Amino acid sequence: MTESSTRVEAFSDGVFAIAITLLILEIRVPRGAGNLWAGLAALWPSYVAFLMSFIVILIMWVNHHELLRMVQGVTYPFLFANGLLLLTVTFVPFPTAVLAANLATAQAKPAVAFYCATFVVNALCWNILFATMVRGGLLRPEVTPATVESVRRAYYLGIVVYLAAALLSFIEPVIGLLINVSLWVVWVTLGYRADATADR
Amino acid sequence: MTESSTRVEAFSDGVFAIAITLLILEIRVPRGAGNLWAGLAALWPSYVAFLMSFIVILIMWVNHHELLRMVQGVTYPFLFANGLLLLTVTFVPFPTAVLAANLATAQAKPAVAFYCATFVVNALCWNILFATMVRGGLLRPEVTPATVESVRRAYYLGIVVYLAAALLSFIEPVIGLLINVSLWVVWVTLGYRADATADR
Amino acid sequence: MTESSTRVEAFSDGVFAIAITLLILEIRVPRGAGNLWAGLAALWPSYVAFLMSFIVILIMWVNHHELLRMVQGVTYPFLFANGLLLLTVTFVPFPTAVLAANLATAQAKPAVAFYCATFVVNALCWNILFATMVRGGLLRPEVTPATVESVRRAYYLGIVVYLAAALLSFIEPVIGLLINVSLWVVWVTLGYRADATADR
Amino acid sequence: MTESSTRVEAFSDGVFAIAITLLILEIRVPRGAGNLWAGLAALWPSYVAFLMSFIVILIMWVNHHELLRMVQGVTYPFLFANGLLLLTVTFVPFPTAVLAANLATAQAKPAVAFYCATFVVNALCWNILFATMVRGGLLRPEVTPATVESVRRAYYLGIVVYLAAALLSFIEPVIGLLINVSLWVVWVTLGYRADATADR
Repeated sequence: MTESSTRVEAFSDGVFAIAITLLILEIRVPRGAGNLWAGLAALWPSYVAFLMSFIVILIMWVNHHELLRMVQGVTYPFLFANGLLLLTVTFVPFPTAVLAANLATAQAKPAVAFYCATFVVNALCWNILFATMVRGGLLRPEVTPATVESVRRAYYLGIVVYLAAALLSFIEPVIGLLINVSLWVVWVTLGYRADATADR
Repeated sequence: MTESSTRVEAFSDGVFAIAITLLILEIRVPRGAGNLWAGLAALWPSYVAFLMSFIVILIMWVNHHELLRMVQGVTYPFLFANGLLLLTVTFVPFPTAVLAANLATAQAKPAVAFYCATFVVNALCWNILFATMVRGGLLRPEVTPATVESVRRAYYLGIVVYLAAALLSFIEPVIGLLINVSLWVVWVTLGYRADATADR
Repeated sequence: MTESSTRVEAFSDGVFAIAITLLILEIRVPRGAGNLWAGLAALWPSYVAFLMSFIVILIMWVNHHELLRMVQGVTYPFLFANGLLLLTVTFVPFPTAVLAANLATAQAKPAVAFYCATFVVNALCWNILFATMVRGGLLRPEVTPATVESVRRAYYLGIVVYLAAALLSFIEPVIGLLINVSLWVVWVTLGYRADATADR
Repeated sequence: MTESSTRVEAFSDGVFAIAITLLILEIRVPRGAGNLWAGLAALWPSYVAFLMSFIVILIMWVNHHELLRMVQGVTYPFLFANGLLLLTVTFVPFPTAVLAANLATAQAKPAVAFYCATFVVNALCWNILFATMVRGGLLRPEVTPATVESVRRAYYLGIVVYLAAALLSFIEPVIGLLINVSLWVVWVTLGYRADATADR
């Protein structure tokens, strides 16, 4: 049972590590005889998109890590719920590339909305994974109902806030991106709190 | 011996994780000054191909995982039979890209047939791997002849059904894809059954 | 606690391994009906860029490896400081491609300067990671203050020397690259020394 | 010491797994309105190149695996000798793409020669790695001088045979490729022998 959990971690870590590293492939070398600095500067939408997706995948990896520490074993439904989550993680390089290609154009609104919508689905998958863990009785006995409630609320919040970000992007794309950034603070703070209360 | 088995798992997990994550590279950002939503919607064959290949590689990873839990050690022929299987896994992004590029065109029939044919070869390799395990005496003593027979039949079924899917694709490509989807149910159910009967 | 450290290592190793392997994707097959040897020879800037980035990522991986051996556990800030460092590692294929595309052109100066500037930021992140380890009390008790001071000085030196390399590239790009190469000797020697003083 | 060895294995496995999986990215989907089967068939040089490189990297991974089982610990020079070997492994997708692009053209001779020459350098690196292990006293006491001699001779043979393959490719490229294939038999047989004599 422990062995299984190890392999899920290894596979998930692999997917997170590859998805986070593939992001750089979307930044293309500026071609043309012009000034290189100008060409590099013109890539700012690519840097913004790269940074945003890198940070969010990193935070997801840390959260995944914390989540699996709550687990005492894995079941078949857990493997597939985890796989569904990973599907949304491996998808991230695509909306990132869409964002990079359109952020400085007239198509910025749909690009940001699509980017945020990806994370609505991702947030949904975190909820499904956690529900699978709770229903399957996979949580360690030392995980308190208060922690379960706090994780559940944070994951639920993710769906709502990303949905709001997607909708507000149609009015002003910068707001959509800023909401994304502000969510980082929520996830990181949540993790810190779990860290402080845990007596590992 | 245990150490060897660990490294085979790590290498295989790496290959599965990379192959599953590379799939996203085949979905290209829509270019052109038109409406972005229309451009994203026009990519539906890419999403279908991505989803189908992601799910099938995920299921393969879970099955590989179950299979290696039956093993008490690895031999040289096992390493190469496993490598042959991984060859067909790393190949998957190519037929996936072929499927994505042709599903909405007049070439849908050969594209789906080629996609299914890839999994005929893949199913053959699962049979070879399992035969190598059985003949090499690598199975743990607690693995019953009934389980061996059930796994063998399921793997054999894979060859037959994927072959049927490939052939039927020449008549109607949608049928070929639906057979692929229905096979997921078979693999997942098989896993569940093994899960229920195992008293780990 | 140990388990957490193991997963950080696994994730970091994954990122290092993927970043180092993706470098090859930037070397494009020479196209055209001309002589293949001439085409392969004309790619020398790509080989130089590939070699330089491969070696520096390899050295970074070895150093990361040594650094984590000093640690007795990981905390939340450590995970993010490590993530920040990995961000600069996954970024490396991009300046490498910029270097390869421009080294043999009139844009060699900005290309080398940009390449070196990337490592200024990278060196900064090594400093941040080490400071996080020291302040968080994560170092094993057997790590002496002398070792801490020596690592800190080496990391600080990294910032200064890469900055000098970036600036000197504006005068003569070859000097910038040679300073990069000479830094390898510093890192490797540093590692050897730590190896010699450790009594494991 | 054991921990270090584990991380070298994990990193090396990662590089082997990524290099072997990236090979598929070089096979491009046939474009154009023509018959898809004809387009897929015309890619035969890509399939040949993919197969050859997949098999040789797989064999290298198995051999690396066997080699590290002979080791009782790792040193700093070992890490760099191993890194040098990995450099030649990550390089493989490039000569593979060169081979695929030129095998069916008038440039087949230089393409095969370049492909073989890559493995001359690779074989050299295996020799360097093994020499580093022997000189550093890293071999387990149960590794007999006869085994050391047999491994050394096999690795030395690699250099000579790949060099012959590279040179003969200038006369007839098919001979060069066939020598590559025949070398697989040598490596696999060598492994089998080591397997038979080991009393794990």
